[in-house]
Amino acid sequence: MNRLNDAPETLAIVGATILDGNGGTPIRDGVVVIEGSRILAVGDRSTPIPPEATEIVASGKFVIPGLMSAYTCLVDGAFLTTVVPYEGRFDELAIEAAQLALKGGVTTVFDPWGPRDALVKAREAIKQGRAVGSRIYLAGNIVGYDGPFSEDFRPKHREVVPRPFATRIDAQWQLNVGRALVQMSPEQVREEIRKYIHSGVDFVSCAITDHCCTGGALKYLVFSSRVLQLIVEEAHRAGLPVVGWAPWSNEGVVHALNAGIDHTIIGRLLPYISEETVAMVGRRQLPCAYAGYTAQVHEWFRGRPGGEFLEGQQAADDMIRRLYDAGAVPMLMTSGQLFSRDEVATWPEPMQSIKGFGVLGQGHVFLLQAMQENGLSPMGALMAATRNISRAYKVDKDLGTLERGKLADLLILDEDPLKDTKNYFGISVVMKEGKVIDRGALPTQRLIIAPPPHSQAYADSKPQLPK
Amino acid sequence: MNRLNDAPETLAIVGATILDGNGGTPIRDGVVVIEGSRILAVGDRSTPIPPEATEIVASGKFVIPGLMSAYTCLVDGAFLTTVVPYEGRFDELAIEAAQLALKGGVTTVFDPWGPRDALVKAREAIKQGRAVGSRIYLAGNIVGYDGPFSEDFRPKHREVVPRPFATRIDAQWQLNVGRALVQMSPEQVREEIRKYIHSGVDFVSCAITDHCCTGGALKYLVFSSRVLQLIVEEAHRAGLPVVGWAPWSNEGVVHALNAGIDHTIIGRLLPYISEETVAMVGRRQLPCAYAGYTAQVHEWFRGRPGGEFLEGQQAADDMIRRLYDAGAVPMLMTSGQLFSRDEVATWPEPMQSIKGFGVLGQGHVFLLQAMQENGLSPMGALMAATRNISRAYKVDKDLGTLERGKLADLLILDEDPLKDTKNYFGISVVMKEGKVIDRGALPTQRLIIAPPPHSQAYADSKPQLPK
Amino acid sequence: MNRLNDAPETLAIVGATILDGNGGTPIRDGVVVIEGSRILAVGDRSTPIPPEATEIVASGKFVIPGLMSAYTCLVDGAFLTTVVPYEGRFDELAIEAAQLALKGGVTTVFDPWGPRDALVKAREAIKQGRAVGSRIYLAGNIVGYDGPFSEDFRPKHREVVPRPFATRIDAQWQLNVGRALVQMSPEQVREEIRKYIHSGVDFVSCAITDHCCTGGALKYLVFSSRVLQLIVEEAHRAGLPVVGWAPWSNEGVVHALNAGIDHTIIGRLLPYISEETVAMVGRRQLPCAYAGYTAQVHEWFRGRPGGEFLEGQQAADDMIRRLYDAGAVPMLMTSGQLFSRDEVATWPEPMQSIKGFGVLGQGHVFLLQAMQENGLSPMGALMAATRNISRAYKVDKDLGTLERGKLADLLILDEDPLKDTKNYFGISVVMKEGKVIDRGALPTQRLIIAPPPHSQAYADSKPQLPK
Amino acid sequence: MNRLNDAPETLAIVGATILDGNGGTPIRDGVVVIEGSRILAVGDRSTPIPPEATEIVASGKFVIPGLMSAYTCLVDGAFLTTVVPYEGRFDELAIEAAQLALKGGVTTVFDPWGPRDALVKAREAIKQGRAVGSRIYLAGNIVGYDGPFSEDFRPKHREVVPRPFATRIDAQWQLNVGRALVQMSPEQVREEIRKYIHSGVDFVSCAITDHCCTGGALKYLVFSSRVLQLIVEEAHRAGLPVVGWAPWSNEGVVHALNAGIDHTIIGRLLPYISEETVAMVGRRQLPCAYAGYTAQVHEWFRGRPGGEFLEGQQAADDMIRRLYDAGAVPMLMTSGQLFSRDEVATWPEPMQSIKGFGVLGQGHVFLLQAMQENGLSPMGALMAATRNISRAYKVDKDLGTLERGKLADLLILDEDPLKDTKNYFGISVVMKEGKVIDRGALPTQRLIIAPPPHSQAYADSKPQLPK
Repeated sequence: MNRLNDAPETLAIVGATILDGNGGTPIRDGVVVIEGSRILAVGDRSTPIPPEATEIVASGKFVIPGLMSAYTCLVDGAFLTTVVPYEGRFDELAIEAAQLALKGGVTTVFDPWGPRDALVKAREAIKQGRAVGSRIYLAGNIVGYDGPFSEDFRPKHREVVPRPFATRIDAQWQLNVGRALVQMSPEQVREEIRKYIHSGVDFVSCAITDHCCTGGALKYLVFSSRVLQLIVEEAHRAGLPVVGWAPWSNEGVVHALNAGIDHTIIGRLLPYISEETVAMVGRRQLPCAYAGYTAQVHEWFRGRPGGEFLEGQQAADDMIRRLYDAGAVPMLMTSGQLFSRDEVATWPEPMQSIKGFGVLGQGHVFLLQAMQENGLSPMGALMAATRNISRAYKVDKDLGTLERGKLADLLILDEDPLKDTKNYFGISVVMKEGKVIDRGALPTQRLIIAPPPHSQAYADSKPQLPK
Repeated sequence: MNRLNDAPETLAIVGATILDGNGGTPIRDGVVVIEGSRILAVGDRSTPIPPEATEIVASGKFVIPGLMSAYTCLVDGAFLTTVVPYEGRFDELAIEAAQLALKGGVTTVFDPWGPRDALVKAREAIKQGRAVGSRIYLAGNIVGYDGPFSEDFRPKHREVVPRPFATRIDAQWQLNVGRALVQMSPEQVREEIRKYIHSGVDFVSCAITDHCCTGGALKYLVFSSRVLQLIVEEAHRAGLPVVGWAPWSNEGVVHALNAGIDHTIIGRLLPYISEETVAMVGRRQLPCAYAGYTAQVHEWFRGRPGGEFLEGQQAADDMIRRLYDAGAVPMLMTSGQLFSRDEVATWPEPMQSIKGFGVLGQGHVFLLQAMQENGLSPMGALMAATRNISRAYKVDKDLGTLERGKLADLLILDEDPLKDTKNYFGISVVMKEGKVIDRGALPTQRLIIAPPPHSQAYADSKPQLPK
Repeated sequence: MNRLNDAPETLAIVGATILDGNGGTPIRDGVVVIEGSRILAVGDRSTPIPPEATEIVASGKFVIPGLMSAYTCLVDGAFLTTVVPYEGRFDELAIEAAQLALKGGVTTVFDPWGPRDALVKAREAIKQGRAVGSRIYLAGNIVGYDGPFSEDFRPKHREVVPRPFATRIDAQWQLNVGRALVQMSPEQVREEIRKYIHSGVDFVSCAITDHCCTGGALKYLVFSSRVLQLIVEEAHRAGLPVVGWAPWSNEGVVHALNAGIDHTIIGRLLPYISEETVAMVGRRQLPCAYAGYTAQVHEWFRGRPGGEFLEGQQAADDMIRRLYDAGAVPMLMTSGQLFSRDEVATWPEPMQSIKGFGVLGQGHVFLLQAMQENGLSPMGALMAATRNISRAYKVDKDLGTLERGKLADLLILDEDPLKDTKNYFGISVVMKEGKVIDRGALPTQRLIIAPPPHSQAYADSKPQLPK
Repeated sequence: MNRLNDAPETLAIVGATILDGNGGTPIRDGVVVIEGSRILAVGDRSTPIPPEATEIVASGKFVIPGLMSAYTCLVDGAFLTTVVPYEGRFDELAIEAAQLALKGGVTTVFDPWGPRDALVKAREAIKQGRAVGSRIYLAGNIVGYDGPFSEDFRPKHREVVPRPFATRIDAQWQLNVGRALVQMSPEQVREEIRKYIHSGVDFVSCAITDHCCTGGALKYLVFSSRVLQLIVEEAHRAGLPVVGWAPWSNEGVVHALNAGIDHTIIGRLLPYISEETVAMVGRRQLPCAYAGYTAQVHEWFRGRPGGEFLEGQQAADDMIRRLYDAGAVPMLMTSGQLFSRDEVATWPEPMQSIKGFGVLGQGHVFLLQAMQENGLSPMGALMAATRNISRAYKVDKDLGTLERGKLADLLILDEDPLKDTKNYFGISVVMKEGKVIDRGALPTQRLIIAPPPHSQAYADSKPQLPK
C-alpha cells in the first residue's frame, strides 16, 4: 500500500452486507469505496476497487449509514447539575455529548433546543477538526418559548439560584426569540425572526402548542396562524427547514401543517387526533419523530410505583401507528441528553431509555427497538434513523444513505441489525467523513458523566436507631 | 287619580331633567310616562300625561336609564367562602347578588362565567316575579375553560377540599364545554357547543387566550381559528351574541375579531396592541369593556405595599383610550362580585373598586369615574353603562335608553350625574319594568354579606408578651 | 307497673350476662337495678328487684358499661368543609358528633382539641337535657399549639381563606394558651394557664413534642421541663387531669412522665423508645391510648397505592405491646371525627377506621378489634374502653363500670362482645343515666354528614374524547 | 541588619499606638517585638529592641491584635451555587474564604457549621503552611441538625437536584450527629457524640432550639435537658468548648445555661427574654455573639421593599444591650460567607453586612460599627473581636491580645480604629504568627467570587415591545 502526496486517502470496505439506507435488498458480499471524505462507489463484489485503496475486510459484518437523531438536546438546561457548574463551558458539554453520540454510532445530531452560541462553537470545533464528535445541526431556541428557568421549563429552579444567574442562563436560550414574540405584532415578529435566522442556526424549531409546565397546559396555540406562517416563510426564504415543536392537540397538528412546517414530533402528550388529521398528515408524508418505550420498560413498571410517565403511552403508540400507516414518515429521535451519574442512579436498571427518552450513545437502540415493537419493519426503523431524517432536514445530498458522492458516514456492525435491534450495539467501526473514529478515546473529557468525587463515601454515614 | 281594574298602572315622572341614554341634549323639566312595564312617552313638559297617571314629582332631579353591567359574575367560584358553604344554593347567591346590584341602580346584569343551572334558576325566579333583583342574562361557562378548582382558576383550592367536592363544583361550571374542547376536532366541538347553546344560556362567553393561572401564561390562543369561528357561527345561528373572553395578546384580539365575536374586554393583562389592530377594532366599532381604577386608588397605593396589581394599568389606560378614539365602543363592566365581609375587611378603605373590579351595587360608580378620568365624557360614560351595552347584546329593542316602547327601567337621581360621578350614588328611585323597587328591603336574604357570627369576639384573644 | 309521682323511675334489666367492666367473671343470668340515673344494684338472679321496677327482659343478651373514648375530636378544625360553612355553629357540630357517638354506644367522650367555648355550650346543652348526646368532657386547646390554620395544623388552608376568617377560627382554639406560651417565661405561662384552667375545661391537653406539620418535625420538646411541670402543677391544683399530647420521641415520653402527666398517646409517629423508658412507663402504670389498624386494613392496602400512612404501624404495634406488657394501662381512643360524605367517599370500603382513626359511632369497634389483634384480651379491650378511661380521668366514682351508685350508662348487646368484636355493633339498648336512648332519632340534625345537594348530578358531565 | 542562620526572624514594630486587646490605655509611640511566630515584648518606647531585629516603622499608625470572628461559616451549604459546582472541593472553598477573611484582618475564624472533613483538610493545609489563610477552628455539624438539603435548612433545594447528590452533601454535614440523635435515648446519643468529638473537631456546636425552616418554628427545644447536659459533659471531658446554637426562646437560653454551654448567639429571632434570664446570663458572664445592622442599613430600607428581615431588630438590639449591661460578654460574629457575585449583585449598595450578616473580609467592620451604634464603647467592640473570643474558646493562652508569649497575630492600621470604625478598613499590615501577609496575593484562587463568564453578555438580550 502506498499513498501519493496530498492525494485523498482511499479505503475499501470489502465483504460485508451493505444496508444502504434506501430500503432495498441488502447487498451481500458488497464493497464500499471511499475517497477522502466521500463515497466513491457502493456495490457488489464486482465493484472496482482502486489499487491504491486500503482494504478493510468486513466479511460477515454489516455496513449501514451513520445513524442520525432527528432531535437531540446536547446541553439540557433542565438539569441544575448541568447549568450551575458549567456556565461558560456549555460548548464543552455539547462536545462531550456529541462524542458520546458518535461513540454509539450516531454520526449526525440535530439539536432543537439549546444555548445557540455555545452550540455554534461546538459545531464549528467539530467541523473544523479541532474536536471529534457527531456532526451538529442546531436550531438554538424553540422560537416562542423562554429559557430553562422560565415557566416554560423549570420555574422551581428559578427560586433556588440567584436571579442574575437565572436571567443570564435563560438569555442564552431565548436570545431574541423567546416568549416575548407571543405578544408582538406580525411585523415585530418578522423583524426578530429575521435576525435570528441569520445568526448561524441550521434549522428553526418553532413552538406549536404551549409548554406551560407549571399549569400542565400543553395544548394552546402559541402563535396565531398568520404569525406561524410568517415564521415558516422567513425560515424557508433563508433555506432553513422548520420543525414544529410540538403539537399537543389535534388543532395544533393542523395549525402546524397549514403553516407549512417540515417535520414534527408526535408523542404521548397528544391525547387525540382525528381521522381527518391523520389523513392530512399522511397525504403530506410529513416526517414525524416519535419516542416509544420498549416492552421491557412497560413490563418492568407493571405494578411498580413511578410508572405514571407511561400513562397514555399505549394510546400514543396506536396513534403513531395510524399516522405511519397513513403515510407519515418515521424518524428516530433520542432527545438524548448528558445525564449525570446521580441522575441515572435513580433509574431502574438496565433500561436506558426511560427518562428524557434516551441516554446518549445507547438510548437510540432502545428507541429503534420500541419502533419495531410498535409495527415498523426492521428496515423501516433503519431508514427512520438515516434517510428519512436526512430528507426531512434537506441534507440528503450529503447524508443519510450509502451512495456515490455522499459523505462517508457509516458503521460496520458485527451482526445483522435487521435481525435483532441489539446488534446496533455491536459496533466494529464508526466512520465519519471517511475517517475511522477512535471510539475508545471518547469522550475526550468527562464533565457531566464524571464519577462523583470521593464524597460518595458519605452516602451511608447516618446513625441508625437500634431495633 | 283613579285606577281601573286590571288596567296596567300608569305613572308619570314629571319635572326632572331626562338623560335618555342616547347622548343628546338633556331634556329639562321633562316627562316620562310609563304604562305597565313599558315607557309610553318621553319628552318635555308638553308631553301629554294620561289623566289616570300617578304623578311622581321629580323637579330638580335627574332621570336616567337603568344601568347595565356588561360583565358581572354573580356567583364567583374563585372564593372558597362562596363555594364551600353554599353548594346547592348558588341560585340564592345569584339572587342576593342581583339584589345588591339592583339596589345600586344596576337593573340589568350580564353574567359571563358562573354555574349555569343555578343562574338559570335565579334568572327565572326574577323574571317570573318570585324574587326581586336585576334582570339576569347569563352565559354559564367560558367555553374552553375548566371550573373554579381547575388549573384555569384556583388549583390551590383543589388541594384543600375533598376531591369529589371539587369535581362536582367544577362540573357545574364546565358542563360539556370545558377544557376538553381544546383537544377535540372541529366536529366534536360543534356537537358539544350546539348542545350547550340550547341549554338556556342567553349569550356565549368564549375563551380567546388561555387563563392558565398557575403558569402565568395568559396569552396563548385557546382555540384554532377554525374552531373559534365555528363556535361563533353556531352561537349566531342560534341568535346568541358572543363575548370574547378575553384577548391577552395582540394576536388574540385579531383572532377574536376575525372569528366574528360581538364584543370583548380589554384590560391590563394585555400588554400591547399594534396600531393596525387598533384601527381594525375601531373600524369594526367593537364594543370593548374596560375596568380602570380611579385616581384615588392610584394615589392611595403610591408608596404603599400591595399595589402591584396596578402595574401596567397606566399602559392599559392608554391603550383603551387609543381604542375608543379609533371607534371602539365603551362598555361598563363591574365584573362585580359578592364579596364576603372578611374579604372586604382586608382592603383599604374607602375604595370599593379595587379587587375583582367592583363591589356589587357600588363599584360601578368608581368604574364610571375611572372611565371619565381616562378621557370619556360624562355622557359617554353614561352611554357606556346603558345604550352601548344593550346594543352589544342586541337587547336594545327593550333596554338601554328611555324611549317609547322600551321597558321602563330607570333611575331618578337627586343630582346631575354628568356633573359628578358620585351623584350616581344619590338614588331617589330605582324603577324596573315600571315598578318602583323597595331598595330598603334588599337584599332580602344575607348570605355572603352576612356579618360574621359572634366568633368575631375571638379575633383579639391572643396573649401578648410583655415589652 | 305503676309509678309514683315524682319518685325516680326504677328499672331492672333481667336475665342478661353482665360484664361489669371490672374484668371479673361475667355474671350470667344477672340483674341490674337502676333507680333514676344511677345503678341501685348489680348481681346474679338473687338480686332483689324493687316491686315498682319496670323489667327489661334481656335473656341471652349482654350488658356492658357505656363505652368511653379517651380522645375524640368532636369538631375537627383540620377540615375546611367543617370550619368554613359552620363558623358560629360549632356547638351544633359537637352535638351532631356526640349524637353519632352515643348512637354507636359511646356514652362518654373526652375531647382533647377543639373550640372550647362551643364545646362548653354543647356539653351544657347535653348535661342540662336540652340535647341528647354522649357526655362530653373537654380540654379546649392543646396547650402550646396554635389553631387549625396555623403551622401546627393546616398552614395551606390559611392561604385560601380570608385572613380575618383564619385568625378568628384559630383564636377559638388557641384562646390564651397557644404557641405564644412557648416564648414566655415561666411566670407568664403560669398566669395564662391559670386563666385557662378556670374557663370551664374538664381536663388539660398539653403539648409534649411539637406538631410542626409543614416541616415534618414532630419530635422537639415544646416546653422546658420547668414550664411543663408548672402547667401540670396548676392543672392538678385545680383538680384537672393532664393528657400529654403527644410524645413523639423517647425523650418526649420521659419529659412527660417527669412532669407528672396523667395519661398519654403512643402512636406510630414515635419511632423508638428505649427499654429504660418502657420500664418507667410500666412502673408508673401510665394509661396510654393507642389507635391501631385491623388486619383487614393492612391486608387491603397490601400492594395498593395510598397505604403509606401505615408505614411504621408494625413498629408501633410492637412498641405498644411492650408498654402494655410492662404495665402501661390500655385506653381506647377513637380520635373520631365527623367526616363529611365527600371525605369518606375517597376511602376504601368498608374500612371505617382508616383516616383520622375512626368514624364516630363505628370506628371504635375496629379500634377495639385492632387492640385484640395486637395482643389485648377481649376483656382487656373492654376495660380499655371503660374502666381504664374513667380512672385515667378520675371520674371513676361515677363512670366506667356497672356498680352500685354509679351512673347508669350501659349497653345491652345482642351477642357476646368477648366472642367477636363485631358484636359491639349489635346494640339492643343504649342507656345513659338511666334513660333509654332513642337511637333511631339520632342525629337529630344532619350537618356534616348530610348528603351533598342535588349538584351530585354534575359529577359525570364531562365530555369525553372519542376513542 | 543581619540574620543568623536558622535563628528565628526578629521584628520590631516601632512608633505606633498599641491597642493590646486588654482594654487598657493605649500605648503611644509603642514597641512590639516579635521573635519567630510569637511576641517577645510589648511596651512603650523604652522597650528593648534586639539588635538583630528588623524594624517596621509605624509612627502615627495603630497596632491591634489580629481580629477574630466567633462564628463564620466558611463553606455555606445553603447556596446551591456553592454546593453544586464544588462537591469534592469544599476544602478549596474554605481556603478561599479563609484568605478573604485574612485579607480583611481577621486572622482567626471559628466555624460552627460546615462539612467537617473538608474543613479539617483546609485547617491542616493552613496550619502546615501549604496554604495561607485565617487560622481555622471548626465544629463540623451543629449537633442535632441535619444537612443543607434537609428540612433544617433548604428543603426546596432537595427537590431540584438528584436525590443521591442531596443525600451525599447532607451526609458531609451530618456525619453521625444529625437529627437522628433527637430520637435516641441518652445512651445512644452518648455513643455517637463520643465518636464525633474525637474526629478532629476543635469545639462543639450544639442545637438548642430547632431550626425547622419550613415550619417557621425556631423555638422548640431540640434535646431534653439530660441529653443536652451529657453532650456538654462529653465535650468538656474532651477539652472542647460548646457553643449553644442558638436559643430562640427564653426557655432555650435557660436550657442552654443549665446544661453548661460556654457561649452562644443572641439574635432577632429570639423575641423575648425575661429579667430573670437576663440576670442569669449576666451572672454567668456568658459570652454572647450578636450581629446587628448599622444605622445606614436601617436608613436605606426605610420605606423600601425588602426590609422585612430587619423586623424585630430593634427589639433584639435592646435585648442584647440589656444582656451586655448585665454582664454578658460581647463577641463579634460575622457568620460570614463566600457570597457569589450573583448573590451580592442583588443587594443594595454599598451595604455589605446585610445578608447572612457579613461578607467575608469586610462585613465584620460594619458589624463592629453596629455594635457601637448600639452602645458598646469603641474599646469594647475591639475586645469583642479579640480577647473576648479567645477566652470564650479557651485559646487565650495563644491568641486574642498583644502580650509576651502569644502568637504574633496583629494588624497595623493607618488610623485610629477607636475614632472611626471605618479605620478597620485602612490596613497597612496583616501579620499572622509573625509573618507579614501578602494581602495583594489573596485569594490565591477565585472560585466562588470569580466573575461570571462571558455569558454575562446575554443578560440584556431580550427583545422589547415598542411603546
